[in-house]
Amino acid sequence: MATGNINVTAENIFPIIKKFLYSDHEIFLRELISNATDATLKLKHLSTLGEVKGDIGEPMLEIKVDKDKKEIRIIDQGIGMTGEEVEKYINQVAFSGAEEFVEKYKDKVEDSGIIGHFGLGFYSSFMVAERVEIFSKSFQEDSKAVRWECDGSPVYTLEETDRTERGTEIVLHIDDDSLEFLEESRINELLNKYNKFMPIPIKFGTKEEALPLPEGAAEDAKPEMITVDNIVNNPSPAWTKKPSDLSDENYSSFYRELYPMQFEEPLFHIHLNVDHPFNLTGILYFPKLSKNMDPAKDKIQLYQNQVFVTDNVEGIVPDFLQMLRGVIDSPDIPLNVSRSYLQADGAVKKISGYITRKVADKLISLFKNDRKGFEEKWDDIKVIIEYGMLSEEKFFDKSEKFALYPTVDKAYLTFSELEEKIKANQTDKDGKTIILYASDVNAQHSYIDAAKEKGYEVLLLDSPIVSHLIQKLEGSKENIQFVRVDSDHVDNLIKKDEDVISKLSEEEKETLKPIIEGAIPKETYTVQLESMDSNANPFMITQPEFMRRMKEMQATGGGGMMGMGNFPEMYNLVVNTNNDLVSEILNTKTKKKQERLIQQAFDLAKLSQGLLKGQELTEFIKRSFEMVK
Amino acid sequence: MATGNINVTAENIFPIIKKFLYSDHEIFLRELISNATDATLKLKHLSTLGEVKGDIGEPMLEIKVDKDKKEIRIIDQGIGMTGEEVEKYINQVAFSGAEEFVEKYKDKVEDSGIIGHFGLGFYSSFMVAERVEIFSKSFQEDSKAVRWECDGSPVYTLEETDRTERGTEIVLHIDDDSLEFLEESRINELLNKYNKFMPIPIKFGTKEEALPLPEGAAEDAKPEMITVDNIVNNPSPAWTKKPSDLSDENYSSFYRELYPMQFEEPLFHIHLNVDHPFNLTGILYFPKLSKNMDPAKDKIQLYQNQVFVTDNVEGIVPDFLQMLRGVIDSPDIPLNVSRSYLQADGAVKKISGYITRKVADKLISLFKNDRKGFEEKWDDIKVIIEYGMLSEEKFFDKSEKFALYPTVDKAYLTFSELEEKIKANQTDKDGKTIILYASDVNAQHSYIDAAKEKGYEVLLLDSPIVSHLIQKLEGSKENIQFVRVDSDHVDNLIKKDEDVISKLSEEEKETLKPIIEGAIPKETYTVQLESMDSNANPFMITQPEFMRRMKEMQATGGGGMMGMGNFPEMYNLVVNTNNDLVSEILNTKTKKKQERLIQQAFDLAKLSQGLLKGQELTEFIKRSFEMVK
Repeated sequence: MATGNINVTAENIFPIIKKFLYSDHEIFLRELISNATDATLKLKHLSTLGEVKGDIGEPMLEIKVDKDKKEIRIIDQGIGMTGEEVEKYINQVAFSGAEEFVEKYKDKVEDSGIIGHFGLGFYSSFMVAERVEIFSKSFQEDSKAVRWECDGSPVYTLEETDRTERGTEIVLHIDDDSLEFLEESRINELLNKYNKFMPIPIKFGTKEEALPLPEGAAEDAKPEMITVDNIVNNPSPAWTKKPSDLSDENYSSFYRELYPMQFEEPLFHIHLNVDHPFNLTGILYFPKLSKNMDPAKDKIQLYQNQVFVTDNVEGIVPDFLQMLRGVIDSPDIPLNVSRSYLQADGAVKKISGYITRKVADKLISLFKNDRKGFEEKWDDIKVIIEYGMLSEEKFFDKSEKFALYPTVDKAYLTFSELEEKIKANQTDKDGKTIILYASDVNAQHSYIDAAKEKGYEVLLLDSPIVSHLIQKLEGSKENIQFVRVDSDHVDNLIKKDEDVISKLSEEEKETLKPIIEGAIPKETYTVQLESMDSNANPFMITQPEFMRRMKEMQATGGGGMMGMGNFPEMYNLVVNTNNDLVSEILNTKTKKKQERLIQQAFDLAKLSQGLLKGQELTEFIKRSFEMVK
Repeated sequence: MATGNINVTAENIFPIIKKFLYSDHEIFLRELISNATDATLKLKHLSTLGEVKGDIGEPMLEIKVDKDKKEIRIIDQGIGMTGEEVEKYINQVAFSGAEEFVEKYKDKVEDSGIIGHFGLGFYSSFMVAERVEIFSKSFQEDSKAVRWECDGSPVYTLEETDRTERGTEIVLHIDDDSLEFLEESRINELLNKYNKFMPIPIKFGTKEEALPLPEGAAEDAKPEMITVDNIVNNPSPAWTKKPSDLSDENYSSFYRELYPMQFEEPLFHIHLNVDHPFNLTGILYFPKLSKNMDPAKDKIQLYQNQVFVTDNVEGIVPDFLQMLRGVIDSPDIPLNVSRSYLQADGAVKKISGYITRKVADKLISLFKNDRKGFEEKWDDIKVIIEYGMLSEEKFFDKSEKFALYPTVDKAYLTFSELEEKIKANQTDKDGKTIILYASDVNAQHSYIDAAKEKGYEVLLLDSPIVSHLIQKLEGSKENIQFVRVDSDHVDNLIKKDEDVISKLSEEEKETLKPIIEGAIPKETYTVQLESMDSNANPFMITQPEFMRRMKEMQATGGGGMMGMGNFPEMYNLVVNTNNDLVSEILNTKTKKKQERLIQQAFDLAKLSQGLLKGQELTEFIKRSFEMVK
């Protein structure tokens, strides 16, 4: 039996790193800036621990592009490397100096902010460069500066050099395939995408800035312009600060920093901050829904120690909160792993639950502290909340305390307030409380009017998933039922033991029914004779609740009864036997006039359900113009 | 100056491979089955070349799961490995035996079908196994079987063993984190996802099968049941065959193999087959649009040598063809690289252009060979085609030959047929040919009717992006203009030099106009007096083409004029001064009656544009019921 060590060679692994590990070539800049940031943070930590002699000043990073020489330089004023350290950290692929540092100082430095994990980032240079040089000088006294060079083959050279500044300078000799990265605009784009909030100032070029005018200057005096360093990042973004140090204005202006094209103010924010069982900070915003919103672009951004990772937060943020905006930052989220890896990760799963809880708590406190303000926001946030109530059981339980049910008259009631308010008048003969609702105040206007005349409250529930939500509410609350106002004529919506007097005798009704049935398409409409108020319309079309709701649920996905979506639309034609017109229809002697009366009444009933269309509508209008004359 | 070799150690690279390279742990099975397939294909190739002694039979793969022992076995009857080969291919991470084989035999074996690229796949075992054993016996005569073992540390053991079967058996001792993979259902799911069409038969378990009844058996005789191998894959899927060897029924049944939950037949298929400048085979289907379609699930699938890669074909298939179904297979598509890598790849970019061309050619031939059949399919395919016309210039040019413009009477015309047909009657006084269209035959019924009475053709263009398409057509064709039927009254849609006689004098008109303006909301409606046919309706509402189209274009994204979407809706109220009712309005003495007449006529005009809603509609209906009595 032989025992041995599995062997990896740089020759074999190099092509894989180039092609395979970093699928986006643009990543190289993020990786090198992350390394430069780590080098600077290490210096700062060591300085705090007294291990660095003298004042380190305010170290910064610099990016330089020389299009003619085809060079990009990434320069830091950080910890630097000695020749031995280059041997250790650079010449050994996948040996992570960052992890070594964190391990060594874990008892002395809290929240190091160190980004590196795998020790691979530097090699991403070879995705875009045909040759890479490193100039470096360690912070250690009397250390000698070194120059390292490699052309992407596993052979390197290392020699002393005469650099005097502390820190590391990486020189990329850009490959002809990658000349795009020599464009200033492309580099600016990458810095803005990945490095906008990194913790060390990053200089890229210069800009003109106006000096403040001297006191007492003339009104038309022009300020003196000076050239200053152009710092591309904000090293202390709002989410890294304490909520107590931030004003509402700070939160708004950070929102605009994140989404410069968004002019609407966010509705409110939630500052996240947890360090057990995982580390996470961040700020989430409930946006005001507007047409200018681009859900594909303006999304929640995920950071790792202030480095942008992705704006695809599927699996990290619960589905129903994907419409929120803002930032989540966790050092526990690896920079380069894929979404499916993240989703399987235990810590990441807990993040989702934590965020749901924080959002629910924020909604409860907004409701308690400023109910009026909360009601004003409701129409903007209801879709998110209703989706959450449907998809997360714990959120549903908490929503009891803040979910609102608006009436068509714009009163916003909690469920228990609603129940209290309608119990007396809207409980039917079987003791069930009937909650009436409309989905469209315009289309269902006449039905809403009729219900309001009875003193009923009518909710306006117009979200696309409302049929699912009411189904869930009926399942979880006792003795209640939702009924849409146009699902039956008003006296039948809430059935009570009341005597109804009919103007027509049973015999007259038996005569009437087949007359009407004969004049309308009976496969779609079922005739239903009812003794109603004589002032109520003679004909009215209703659509039974159960069938309609099942069809709606199926149309919006999930639930509903299989195949229900393909059922034809079925309606009832309610005939008010107490209306004079109906008596007139019954007593009209000429068949032709009778049919004309039924047709016009039927058309008007269809009109109020939005069912009179096309040819029928054109003919109705023509006929009606004749009648006007 | 020192020169040296950059160094990689297995200790450093192993954790990265586990965590980082294969983000989906489930990938391990695909990788091991790919290796086993390669081993079998190599044996077959060598046998063809006469390098294998004896008959190799029909080698197959087998997967075995032992839940109690926490073992998964992947067994092949392929080429096997000697001790030296294990040293070379297994103990050297990222040394690809597959690439070596392809290189060695490239002149002798065409289309090897070999899957492997990087030599990393085997190590994915350690994502799910705490310990891995390999038993292998080479096909070479007198070779000795070997057993290799490793627990994920870089230390391995290798020894001789007494296995007698040719081939390789991998034994995974599954880690407690990954027990899910010991479930038969999970393995079946993975086999179905990744290996359904791999080229070597894969056995997983057994199944019961009925023997055919003997001839002359009694009618109620029960067939004898026997236990047979359960083969989970179809090693020769339709796309690997020649189109000439496939019937329409073969294509349909392959469609159902791909999408077992799809019951609708596809409309037609396109068989792809190209080997220069890249290798690609596949079958694309135009699906029949139906409610049961799940665009998130039933998508085009991308394969590499019959191994499933992804169903996210963004960037590979042009956007407008994403709604198609089917399979694309290319050995040039790397198995594990990410989408953004694919999109940047030159070969992949060419694939997209090739597919567009093939689809256009297929549409041309369908149109030519069976115009009636093509017309019947048009409503199902038009959205895809119209989107393609907008987004791909080359497709737009080709579409001239097959794009159809249906009339409201269901005639399907090409653009040149349409132009020919309408030129005489629909050219206006400036020599411009006016193409009339409607977007909804129901909602615009009265306007369509009026246009048809004039002998005009009216197209039905009801796709969501139609406003963009007609904008493009107007820009690319000479002297034509699209006008929606309800954008003006019928005599103005196509302006001709015709005398119109007005019943009202200019003075009467000047009296009438302010009367009507005073009775309607003038911020939304502009009064426009016109001398029309006396039988035409007295009042009519129109919406000018330009404004409406710009608003629509902005609403459907891209194009349109910025900010137009937020403009209020503006309409014209066309008053037919030749209609008797209008004279009556003018001559009515009582102000109240005059207002009532205007109101009723205005309501009827709004009704035919779908603008009478809510309270106004309820009141109109109430009033109309009174008038019926």
